[in-house]
Amino acid sequence: MTRAADSVESGLARYRGRVGDALHHYFPEREPRKHLYDLVRTYPARGGKGLRPALCMATAGAFGANPERVLASAAAIEMFHNGFLIHDDIEDGSDLRRGCATLHREHGLALAVNAGDAVFALALRPILDNLRLLGPALTHTIAREFEHLVLECVEGQAIELGWIRDNACALKPADYLHMCLKKTCWYTAIHPCRIGALIGSGGGFAPGRLDRFGFFLGAAFQIQDDLLNLKEERGNYGKELAGDIFEGKRTLMLIHLLSTLARRDRSWLKRFLAVPRAERTRGDVSRVLALMEEHGSIEFARRCSGFLAGAALSEFSRLFGGCPDTADRRFLNDLILYMIERDL
Amino acid sequence: MTRAADSVESGLARYRGRVGDALHHYFPEREPRKHLYDLVRTYPARGGKGLRPALCMATAGAFGANPERVLASAAAIEMFHNGFLIHDDIEDGSDLRRGCATLHREHGLALAVNAGDAVFALALRPILDNLRLLGPALTHTIAREFEHLVLECVEGQAIELGWIRDNACALKPADYLHMCLKKTCWYTAIHPCRIGALIGSGGGFAPGRLDRFGFFLGAAFQIQDDLLNLKEERGNYGKELAGDIFEGKRTLMLIHLLSTLARRDRSWLKRFLAVPRAERTRGDVSRVLALMEEHGSIEFARRCSGFLAGAALSEFSRLFGGCPDTADRRFLNDLILYMIERDL
Repeated sequence: MTRAADSVESGLARYRGRVGDALHHYFPEREPRKHLYDLVRTYPARGGKGLRPALCMATAGAFGANPERVLASAAAIEMFHNGFLIHDDIEDGSDLRRGCATLHREHGLALAVNAGDAVFALALRPILDNLRLLGPALTHTIAREFEHLVLECVEGQAIELGWIRDNACALKPADYLHMCLKKTCWYTAIHPCRIGALIGSGGGFAPGRLDRFGFFLGAAFQIQDDLLNLKEERGNYGKELAGDIFEGKRTLMLIHLLSTLARRDRSWLKRFLAVPRAERTRGDVSRVLALMEEHGSIEFARRCSGFLAGAALSEFSRLFGGCPDTADRRFLNDLILYMIERDL
Repeated sequence: MTRAADSVESGLARYRGRVGDALHHYFPEREPRKHLYDLVRTYPARGGKGLRPALCMATAGAFGANPERVLASAAAIEMFHNGFLIHDDIEDGSDLRRGCATLHREHGLALAVNAGDAVFALALRPILDNLRLLGPALTHTIAREFEHLVLECVEGQAIELGWIRDNACALKPADYLHMCLKKTCWYTAIHPCRIGALIGSGGGFAPGRLDRFGFFLGAAFQIQDDLLNLKEERGNYGKELAGDIFEGKRTLMLIHLLSTLARRDRSWLKRFLAVPRAERTRGDVSRVLALMEEHGSIEFARRCSGFLAGAALSEFSRLFGGCPDTADRRFLNDLILYMIERDL
C-alpha cells in the first residue's frame, strides 16, 4: 500500500467511527422491522468505505468547523447514498452489492423500492435536526442543497438509463463527463464538499467555488470505479465481475471503444448492446473486454482518470492552500491520489 | 348526483384551478425531458381529483388563512401523491393508472423508479419555498411534517406488501385499520389537514387535534376506494377491474371473507392467494367476488365505511363548529358525505 492509500484508509476509518453513531441514531429501532427497517439497515450493515461523509467532515474541518457541527449532515449524505444504491441496483438489474445479494433479489422488488423511499425520508431527519446547532438560515440552506443534490442525481440517472434504453452508440467523452457530473460527482464529491464548506465557514464561503474540485475528484473516482468493475480476475470486489458490460453501461471505455472500432466489430458490438441483458453471454462479455484492451480503451480511461485527479490536485491547492496543515486537510490531499491508486 | 356530491365536485374543481399553476411551476421545463421530466408530468397530466390539496386548502381557509399562504404546501402534497402513485404501481405490479398504462409499463421499470424519486425531490422545493411567506419557524415545522408523512406512508406500505409476501390469512379488521391509518389516512387526510391548520392558525393550533378526524375520513375514503375497485361492471374506473383481488390485496372485504368462510372455501381462497399474481385466473377472481357478496363481506365494508364517515362528521363538528360558515368549511362538511357516496 502506498503512503497516500495508507493515510486515506486510516482517515476513512476515523471518520466512519465518528459518523457511525449518528447513522445508528437515525435508523429507527421499531416496527415494521421484517419488511422495512431490517431492509433499511442491510446495506449499511455490510460496510462501505464511508467516502462521502468523510469528504464532508474533512472539508468542514479544513474550514475550521468543530466536528460536532457536521455530523448530522455527514450522516444524511451516507444515508442518501445507501438509499440511492437500493434503487440503483433495481434500475441496473444488479444481483450483488457489497458481496451479497442485492436488496430486491433478497426481498423482492416491491419491498426494495419501498425501503429505498424510506431511506430518502429518513435522511431528511438529520438535515432538519441541524436547526439546534446551526440555526435556521444555515439549516434551510443545507435543505436546499439536499434538494438540489437529489435532482442532479436523478437527472444523471435518467440520462444514463436513457442511453441503455435507446441503445445510444454515438456518445462522446464529453457526454460521459456531463452524465457523470450529475449522477456521480454531485453526490459523491460536490455536495459533501459544499456542505462541509458551508458549515465550516458558517455560511460565509460561496459553495459554488468547490464545484470544479468536486467534479474533477468525482469523475476521477467514477472512472476508476468503472475500471475496477472490469478487473475480472479479482474475486473480492463484491459486485458482479464486469457487470457493467453485462448491463451495457455506457462507461468511458465503452464510449471510446464504440468510436474506435472498425465497421465490422462495431456492428457486432452494437448488436451485443441491443439484446436484453439476460441474452448476453459470458463469452461475448469477454470479447468486449478483449476489444477494449486491444483498442486502448482501458488505457484511455486510465489516463483520463489521471488527468482529472491532476486537475483536482490543482484546484485543491488553489482552494485549500491557505488552510492550516491539519489532519483534515492532509486527508483531502491524499484522497485525491488514492482515488486513482486504490485496488489497482 | 346528490347535493353533497355536486358541491364537492365544484369545490374540487375550484381548488384544482388554484393549485394547478403552482404545480405547473414546480415541474421543471428542462432536459432530460424524454427520460425524466416527461415521465414526471405523465400522471398529473392525466388528471386526478386533487382531493388532498383541496383538503389542505379548505382546512387552511376554514382556519382563516389567505389562500396564497397554503398554495405551495398544497402543491407539495399533490406532488408527493403523484410520486407515490408511480412507486405504488410498481410495487403492486399494476397495469393501468387513470385509464392508461402505468409509468413502468410505458417506460420500463428503471426509468419509472427514477421518475418517482425525482417527484419526491421536486416536492421538497415548494416546502422550502414556504420560507418567504411563512417565515423560518413554520417552514421548518412543515418540513418536519413532510418527513413524518413519508415515513408513515412507507411503513404502511411495508405492512401491506409484507402481508402479500407472507400470504397473511389471519388478519383482523383492526390490523387493516392500522395499516390504512399509516398508508392512506396520513397522506390523504391527516397531513393535509395538519398543514392546513398549521398555516391557517399561524402555528398556534396543535395539529395532533386533527388526527382522529383525518383517520376517520381517510379510512372511510380507502374502504370506499376498495369497494369501487370491485365494481367490475363499470368500465370507466381507470384501473384494472377487481385488480385488488388479482393482486391479493388485503382489503377489509378480503379480511372479512377469510374470517367468515368455512374450512373448504377458506382453504381454496388461501391457495388462490398463495399463487403468483400471473397464475390467478379471471374465473377465480369472479369466485372470490361471489363469495364476498354471499358472505356479506361487501356489506360489512360498506357499513364500516359509513360508521367511519359518521365518526368523521362528529369530529368535524367538534373541531370546526366554531369556525364561520364559509365555502371552505362547507366543502369540508360535504366532503365527508361525498366520501361514501361517490360513484356508488
